[in-house]
Amino acid sequence: MTRPDPLVVFTPSGKRGRFAVGTPLLAAARTLGVDIDSVCGGRAICGRCQVLVAEGEFAKHGVRSAADSLSPLSESEQRYSSRQPLAAGRRLSCQARVEADVVIDVPAGSQVHRQVVRKSAEARDIELYPLVKLHYVEVTEPDMQDPSGDLQRLQAALAREWQLADLQCDLTVLQQLQPVLRAGGWKVTVAVHDASRIIAVWPGFHDESFGLALDVGSTTIAAHLCDLASGEVVASAGRMNPQIRFGEDLMSRVSYAMMNPGGAAQMTAVVRQAIGELAAEVSASAGIAPQAILEAALVGNPIMHHLVLGIDPVELGGAPFALAVDEAVTVTAAEIGVALHPNARVYALPCIAGHVGADAAGMILAERPDLTDEITLLVDVGTNAEIVLGNRHRLLACSSPTGPAFEGAQISCGQRAAPGAIERVRVDRETLEPRFKIIGSDLWSNDPQFAAAAAATGVTGICGSGIIEVIAELYLAGVISRDGVIDGSLAARSPRIVPHGRTFSYMLYTGPQTLSITQTDVRAIQLAKAALSAGIRLLMDRLGVERVDRIRLAGAFGSHIDVKYAAVLGMIPDCDLEQVTSAGNAAGSGARIALLDSRSRATIEALVRRVEKIETAIEPLFQAHFVDAMAIPHRTADYPSLRKVVDLPAATPTASGGEGPRRRARRAATPAQPV
Amino acid sequence: MTRPDPLVVFTPSGKRGRFAVGTPLLAAARTLGVDIDSVCGGRAICGRCQVLVAEGEFAKHGVRSAADSLSPLSESEQRYSSRQPLAAGRRLSCQARVEADVVIDVPAGSQVHRQVVRKSAEARDIELYPLVKLHYVEVTEPDMQDPSGDLQRLQAALAREWQLADLQCDLTVLQQLQPVLRAGGWKVTVAVHDASRIIAVWPGFHDESFGLALDVGSTTIAAHLCDLASGEVVASAGRMNPQIRFGEDLMSRVSYAMMNPGGAAQMTAVVRQAIGELAAEVSASAGIAPQAILEAALVGNPIMHHLVLGIDPVELGGAPFALAVDEAVTVTAAEIGVALHPNARVYALPCIAGHVGADAAGMILAERPDLTDEITLLVDVGTNAEIVLGNRHRLLACSSPTGPAFEGAQISCGQRAAPGAIERVRVDRETLEPRFKIIGSDLWSNDPQFAAAAAATGVTGICGSGIIEVIAELYLAGVISRDGVIDGSLAARSPRIVPHGRTFSYMLYTGPQTLSITQTDVRAIQLAKAALSAGIRLLMDRLGVERVDRIRLAGAFGSHIDVKYAAVLGMIPDCDLEQVTSAGNAAGSGARIALLDSRSRATIEALVRRVEKIETAIEPLFQAHFVDAMAIPHRTADYPSLRKVVDLPAATPTASGGEGPRRRARRAATPAQPV
Repeated sequence: MTRPDPLVVFTPSGKRGRFAVGTPLLAAARTLGVDIDSVCGGRAICGRCQVLVAEGEFAKHGVRSAADSLSPLSESEQRYSSRQPLAAGRRLSCQARVEADVVIDVPAGSQVHRQVVRKSAEARDIELYPLVKLHYVEVTEPDMQDPSGDLQRLQAALAREWQLADLQCDLTVLQQLQPVLRAGGWKVTVAVHDASRIIAVWPGFHDESFGLALDVGSTTIAAHLCDLASGEVVASAGRMNPQIRFGEDLMSRVSYAMMNPGGAAQMTAVVRQAIGELAAEVSASAGIAPQAILEAALVGNPIMHHLVLGIDPVELGGAPFALAVDEAVTVTAAEIGVALHPNARVYALPCIAGHVGADAAGMILAERPDLTDEITLLVDVGTNAEIVLGNRHRLLACSSPTGPAFEGAQISCGQRAAPGAIERVRVDRETLEPRFKIIGSDLWSNDPQFAAAAAATGVTGICGSGIIEVIAELYLAGVISRDGVIDGSLAARSPRIVPHGRTFSYMLYTGPQTLSITQTDVRAIQLAKAALSAGIRLLMDRLGVERVDRIRLAGAFGSHIDVKYAAVLGMIPDCDLEQVTSAGNAAGSGARIALLDSRSRATIEALVRRVEKIETAIEPLFQAHFVDAMAIPHRTADYPSLRKVVDLPAATPTASGGEGPRRRARRAATPAQPV
Repeated sequence: MTRPDPLVVFTPSGKRGRFAVGTPLLAAARTLGVDIDSVCGGRAICGRCQVLVAEGEFAKHGVRSAADSLSPLSESEQRYSSRQPLAAGRRLSCQARVEADVVIDVPAGSQVHRQVVRKSAEARDIELYPLVKLHYVEVTEPDMQDPSGDLQRLQAALAREWQLADLQCDLTVLQQLQPVLRAGGWKVTVAVHDASRIIAVWPGFHDESFGLALDVGSTTIAAHLCDLASGEVVASAGRMNPQIRFGEDLMSRVSYAMMNPGGAAQMTAVVRQAIGELAAEVSASAGIAPQAILEAALVGNPIMHHLVLGIDPVELGGAPFALAVDEAVTVTAAEIGVALHPNARVYALPCIAGHVGADAAGMILAERPDLTDEITLLVDVGTNAEIVLGNRHRLLACSSPTGPAFEGAQISCGQRAAPGAIERVRVDRETLEPRFKIIGSDLWSNDPQFAAAAAATGVTGICGSGIIEVIAELYLAGVISRDGVIDGSLAARSPRIVPHGRTFSYMLYTGPQTLSITQTDVRAIQLAKAALSAGIRLLMDRLGVERVDRIRLAGAFGSHIDVKYAAVLGMIPDCDLEQVTSAGNAAGSGARIALLDSRSRATIEALVRRVEKIETAIEPLFQAHFVDAMAIPHRTADYPSLRKVVDLPAATPTASGGEGPRRRARRAATPAQPV
């Protein structure tokens, strides 16, 4: 009877098999389909294939130590270890050979498809499936007796060592291939995109591959540099979108493109340049060259998406709001003139509809509302609010023209979120006196230390979340009616209420400058929140629900807003407030997922096709919802969940009396729904 | 019993079938796989689907005329006919419907895959399988209720009307798609490359697609503009390769690249610009814009091939003469900065070896020596001679460093083939007096009218074919020995023989300037022809043949040379002179075939892999053959076929006496061959 071959068990996968004595662990792992990384192809150069010799079952019972179950350190392994010491119990799986039964642990860092942990507790981890992979190969030298192209011998090496057949090759790689092969002594590392195309080549061993997740907003552009080997974000940066000088909001940019020949091209040029500068900035932080960025994924609203791709967005400026392309687009960095590696592929996520862009697709990919039975509402508030509603059965999306009021624009003393801006406000229910906090300080304004703390920045204006709070607080204090009218009769009770033309204002701050909430400001917020609310309501009508199970607020605004006040003003529908949370930069997270997990691209492309697109501009009900939603909601009747949280003032009749027009409109629109 | 459906017979294919009354002829043809063209997709716009109603078998026996077997002219057909009258008996097959049995002739002009007739009697016709096809489509307008990208609706139309699924789209097409769709009222024509990619789009119906066949030689660049619908060459042009200012021959250009940083890039820039200018020139002749050129095919020697692609050719300047790439390469016109349609794909034919380029591949494709049992020798004489030998069983190729002597360079009174250059020479065997012809005149120089005829140009020098003739004639007249020595003793007999340093010259022409053949000139031609001969001999050795069945001489030199004199000098091996013919610009023809018949690309790519590549630089036998071939061949012993044609002088012993070293070497090299 022959002794059986040694048993090798890999953890954490639990995969196991018997292998002849002398089999390299890496080969055993490959045979079993155990996920172990390698760039150098088993030459003890890259160190990516490290494993840990575990003290497992065998060691408990056996006579030999676990380490004895493997061949001793090879010469190459010793060479590697002298450059880059191996931790205790670690071996290079390409060098260590099986001698006896053994349990081998594959640490996360050695897995190709490791999990990338995301910060938010609610977020799923990203599984690493990068589209660009590095492969080190040794290429046969040219032979006059059997002439062949250097590229053909490189391709043969990639087929032989990496089972990569029929690889295409970008022209710029071909142009530099000969000097690179010779500089590397016929040893080179190539970057292969999607197992189908050679996009870069370096002499010798090269172990740097980076990707860029790009979130191109109308106001700001954010970039996250990711190490494609680990999936980690190694640097992030943001900057203003330089297109702002052509128009503050999206529609003014489309107008610019319409009115100025070459205007779209101008806006394309500046946004591409800004992306290049951001790439340079994050690269510098990480100590790499921007040319080390081999892949990018991009989200943005449809107009930003089109402008980055060099498509004139004029069609998005009017009905029928036709996208040039709704499916995902992949271009090279060189084609769009963005200074990464010229052959880096830039993947733009699909757009959903004329007003619902790749940013919404990114949000869906980051949040995956399709994975649960719960009805999830996703809202990304910008100049347009992009709204997604649904669960595993149905997904609906629309965009609603909130305008820039939530970002502090169109508000008399509004400003962007920046140090000095008021972001938190409380109004005393009796005295109507305010206290507030500014960005950059943790102190309330009635703290004796506040003046000193605020001296550096001053109190400069009110940002989006501050406006929401002050108006909600004024409502809760009875200064503002459900119809949004500042009650002038209170001027008798408080010097804060002052006449302002034929209406009244509330003086929030009187310092070097006076910051007041005017009647016009309240109207601007009412219009914005009515648009948001109407969009959400429209989707809820279509889905046939009266409540949602959870709400995720995306974007900067969603991160800063106090959801309680959003609920008071009726910006969001009734929902347990514990289930209303910030999704952070969900669109940007979607870009990062698409960048790191290539399989997610098919997922979002398929999901987007399933999304039911609602065009608010042509929905008659939208207008009705909008008119109705101008008022501040009716106490607990409209928002029962609020009862637990804030003490609402006694019912204030609206101008139109009793039941608000929204409830009437809803009833008319959904006759089949029980009221 | 029901009456059977009408029978439709298509000629010349003979395909037949029964179709329900009312079936459009085009649909019937498609069902049977009959090749009928259409761009407009059956809308009576393009007129490409015209057929002829034949008076066939049925008409002979039947009671109705053939024309009655079809529906009457439709309204659309009448509209077409009013713009573009239909010839008698012609119908648009998309409009004419079957009513009774009928015979339909599909004229060549209506076939997609028509035969393109080539000029030379020996050349096979080209079957038209262009890679770029035009398709007219009507695109659904955008709908806010069901938003989708314009590109997606275009793709849907192409899938619906043309069964073209999963089409990719070039970015520049996407960038202009929206305005083009609207300008065309949602009717557009697209150019689809290889049934896989949209590379161009025009508003409305568009019926122009052109291709460019490019032959990039070291000295001249030739371009042929082809109509991709008919396959016809509509314009041709050539110009000097502007790289000449960096070096007359290939090796001096490689040296320039080696010695001057950026030198290769300079040469790349000028050759690309010249190609763009040629494209503009042929486009202007044809009355089209260069942007109407949607496809190109390119041949050239390896160094030209690499420089056009932007690859530094330094590796081709020394052993092991490694190509960067030997397989076919496809790039866009934009990628290589050539001013055609930016998305035009440029197909560079495969290279064979470091000295045997895409031009040799083009020659093989044009001549197809692999199709017969006959042993064919293909020779393209330039600065290097590219030589292919073989038949259906084996193909061998090499390059031989002939230098530029055959092109008139390195010859004291040599010049390029241009008006005024001596191209034909006869030397009287008795008086040793010459007569000659110059390019641009049909008169011999001893004709009384010659002086007047030559006045316009003068007699300016000797071109390649003139040099061959004068040296061969001088040999036949006994002025030059088999060793190539000008016999100074003849100076006594003729004033044409004059001393020139320590050797002698032959004064061919004494006018305003004297044109002489010097001893150095003879040596230069001996070196060139020895190199050519040694290369050919090497391939014959390898193939194990002593004779070839046919010889095709390609290139300008091959077109002008009198093969008898080439045989006298021993430039070509023994072969029935009737089987030695010019192949014209075979490399350029190969480019045209690759352009027009896309299937031929796979053919040449496979053939090139089969070719046995011989590197003359490392073949010890090459040197032996070369030394041996310096002498002029031994009468009829070396070239029995010549016996019929020219009266050879009596045997003149060579310096080395009796049997030449070549025969000795050959014997040594092929011991198995009977001597």
